[in-house]
Amino acid sequence: MEQQHASPLSETRGDERTKKQIAILGSTGSIGTQALQVIEEHSDLYEVYCLTANNRVELLAEQARRFKPAAVVIANEMLYDKLRTLLADEPDIKVYAGPDAIDEIVESGPIDMVLTAMVGFAGLSPTIHAIKARKTICLANKETLVVAGELIRELATRYRTPILPVDSEHSAIFQSIAGEGDNEIEKILLTASGGPFRNMTTDRLATVTKADALRHPTWEMGAKITIDSATMMNKGFEVIEAKWLFGVDARQIEVLVHPQSIVHSAVQFRDGAVKAQLGVPDMRLPIQYAFSYPQRLHLSSERLDLFSQPLEFFKPDMEKFRCLALAFEAIDRGGNMPCIVNAANEVVNRGFLDGRCGFIQMSEIIEKTMGRTTFDPEPTYETYVATDMEARRIAAEIMG
Amino acid sequence: MEQQHASPLSETRGDERTKKQIAILGSTGSIGTQALQVIEEHSDLYEVYCLTANNRVELLAEQARRFKPAAVVIANEMLYDKLRTLLADEPDIKVYAGPDAIDEIVESGPIDMVLTAMVGFAGLSPTIHAIKARKTICLANKETLVVAGELIRELATRYRTPILPVDSEHSAIFQSIAGEGDNEIEKILLTASGGPFRNMTTDRLATVTKADALRHPTWEMGAKITIDSATMMNKGFEVIEAKWLFGVDARQIEVLVHPQSIVHSAVQFRDGAVKAQLGVPDMRLPIQYAFSYPQRLHLSSERLDLFSQPLEFFKPDMEKFRCLALAFEAIDRGGNMPCIVNAANEVVNRGFLDGRCGFIQMSEIIEKTMGRTTFDPEPTYETYVATDMEARRIAAEIMG
Repeated sequence: MEQQHASPLSETRGDERTKKQIAILGSTGSIGTQALQVIEEHSDLYEVYCLTANNRVELLAEQARRFKPAAVVIANEMLYDKLRTLLADEPDIKVYAGPDAIDEIVESGPIDMVLTAMVGFAGLSPTIHAIKARKTICLANKETLVVAGELIRELATRYRTPILPVDSEHSAIFQSIAGEGDNEIEKILLTASGGPFRNMTTDRLATVTKADALRHPTWEMGAKITIDSATMMNKGFEVIEAKWLFGVDARQIEVLVHPQSIVHSAVQFRDGAVKAQLGVPDMRLPIQYAFSYPQRLHLSSERLDLFSQPLEFFKPDMEKFRCLALAFEAIDRGGNMPCIVNAANEVVNRGFLDGRCGFIQMSEIIEKTMGRTTFDPEPTYETYVATDMEARRIAAEIMG
Repeated sequence: MEQQHASPLSETRGDERTKKQIAILGSTGSIGTQALQVIEEHSDLYEVYCLTANNRVELLAEQARRFKPAAVVIANEMLYDKLRTLLADEPDIKVYAGPDAIDEIVESGPIDMVLTAMVGFAGLSPTIHAIKARKTICLANKETLVVAGELIRELATRYRTPILPVDSEHSAIFQSIAGEGDNEIEKILLTASGGPFRNMTTDRLATVTKADALRHPTWEMGAKITIDSATMMNKGFEVIEAKWLFGVDARQIEVLVHPQSIVHSAVQFRDGAVKAQLGVPDMRLPIQYAFSYPQRLHLSSERLDLFSQPLEFFKPDMEKFRCLALAFEAIDRGGNMPCIVNAANEVVNRGFLDGRCGFIQMSEIIEKTMGRTTFDPEPTYETYVATDMEARRIAAEIMG
């Protein structure tokens, strides 16, 4: 009864104070749109502070109308005027453009959490800015850790900024170590669907098309990560990501091809106990868990049905999926080598999508780029930027 | 360097003060002997304070010589003199006999933890004594919770005594909820090997022998629990045990037949995430986890190999495995009904092992006993004792 006497105004003000303010970098992508679904479902807890996108200006404007963020940023500066026009009747939403604006906006005082859901190397700079501004990072941009894992880890430690994984595999690992305190991780069992070409011969692989590669068996994702899944470079990147997120050696990470994508990953402890997180493939779960951690909120998703199919696990074929082997090699080499692999991969991934290189060629070009780009065993942020540019140029030259 | 200057005496005293003192009730059984292996492996952390057994006096004496407990108790008073003789040259080990001695010994001041690894209704009284004396309970005697779950839960709350599960399934659930705080359990997925008769027709079931039933496919256990596994009454009891341990409704517990016994059980949360503990079947793991919780200690067991076989899950056949249905019925009825089922089951289990009743008859006798024993919706400890006696008498009469 007493609650009814509170004025609407005071209720609203109270709500606003307790709602977590979230910045979504890459809001028009697969992770970004699903994050907005989660926020909409739990609008009593979360509020969008800012949205950013690369090029999809119409969708960004539509999201801004719906979620009323304080600000939006379009990375591609040529689309600034268009975005302003689209949001002309929303005077409370500030409109910015360009990568520097993203770096600045993530530092805004009211922001509690930054979801890094953009694609590729572009995620590195804003993530560093957010870490330094002590915004909890919900990390969906794995390239950040692939490129500069050591630097990110060091910064996160120095600024005491939590980095919570959003990748389903790393979220599964994170969920599996909840409550384990200092209990030592003996091994990480990182599962992989194996992609659409799991059972294909190498000969057949040479002839697969973009359309074949975009047909992922279990997850619906953006184009870049879907191609990376088909080559298994995505899994290689996840190994690097896991190494930095959980402080383990790459040799403690085993990749298991698990075509059903039900066991999202697992952790083995020193007593031999393995803890795993399972579920239907639904990215809203890891996104929501990163937002609500350590609490869990209701999610009206399909529930797991373990009766529907047996769970199978196979060793990955690293000869056939050469990209996975190259990723492990890059970790072994260390320094800026993972950065080189990432840059070359961004080039060949785009090249494959544009029909400028074949499936098998992708790993060949990456390997050659690894051999030709200047190696730096102790890179700084500036080295990473330079390496990224050099490796992209070399990979593009090789691709022709 | 400084440590080397400490005298041996002070080191020893230091060690002794920090070692956890453990009482093992039922030390000569399967769980008891494996618990002693764990203690031996971690003798820097644990020490045996007392050992008890029912009848196996030679093994008890042998264990006593090896682990030098302060006391041993043989439940069967007729074996007291024999045990005294066997331990005549161990003047520091006190020798007692009879159930009352067990109730008394668990209250001893130095004891930190009591592992209840005896079989059947006999576990109830000493468990209650240990709870009241605030000894951490490592619960392997599931019949305690089957018979008197409500009472045990109430006492554990009142005396603030932790009850840690040792059953592999309940340990898996317990491990899966570590770190989950107040996160609500939506469902418990309780796995079952299905026992040796999983794929047998009901006709064939009628003719199975004791030798058939004692051949469990995945776990090596004592005779009583192996027969209970073959009838799936063991799984029914585990449902009741889980209900009381984790405060869930029986309808939130789903039994999954999982012939590989790799997923030891799982928990589904309100966001649909399922967390599971997996491993090779090895009871030392849950025993050790109960001792060391929340830490994990090294265990040199075989590690899980997920590549060796697919993991399958089936719905249990409650028509064929009638005992499982009877256990669910007993939970629904509540009161002393689970106590009645347990008593009747102890009688028919013994009867089957002695060749006095067939496999199918076991569930028939239990069902009849449920109908004929005095029902009490709000039993006390005294009611449980009376119910146990009445139901045993009735079941024995029906068995003839």
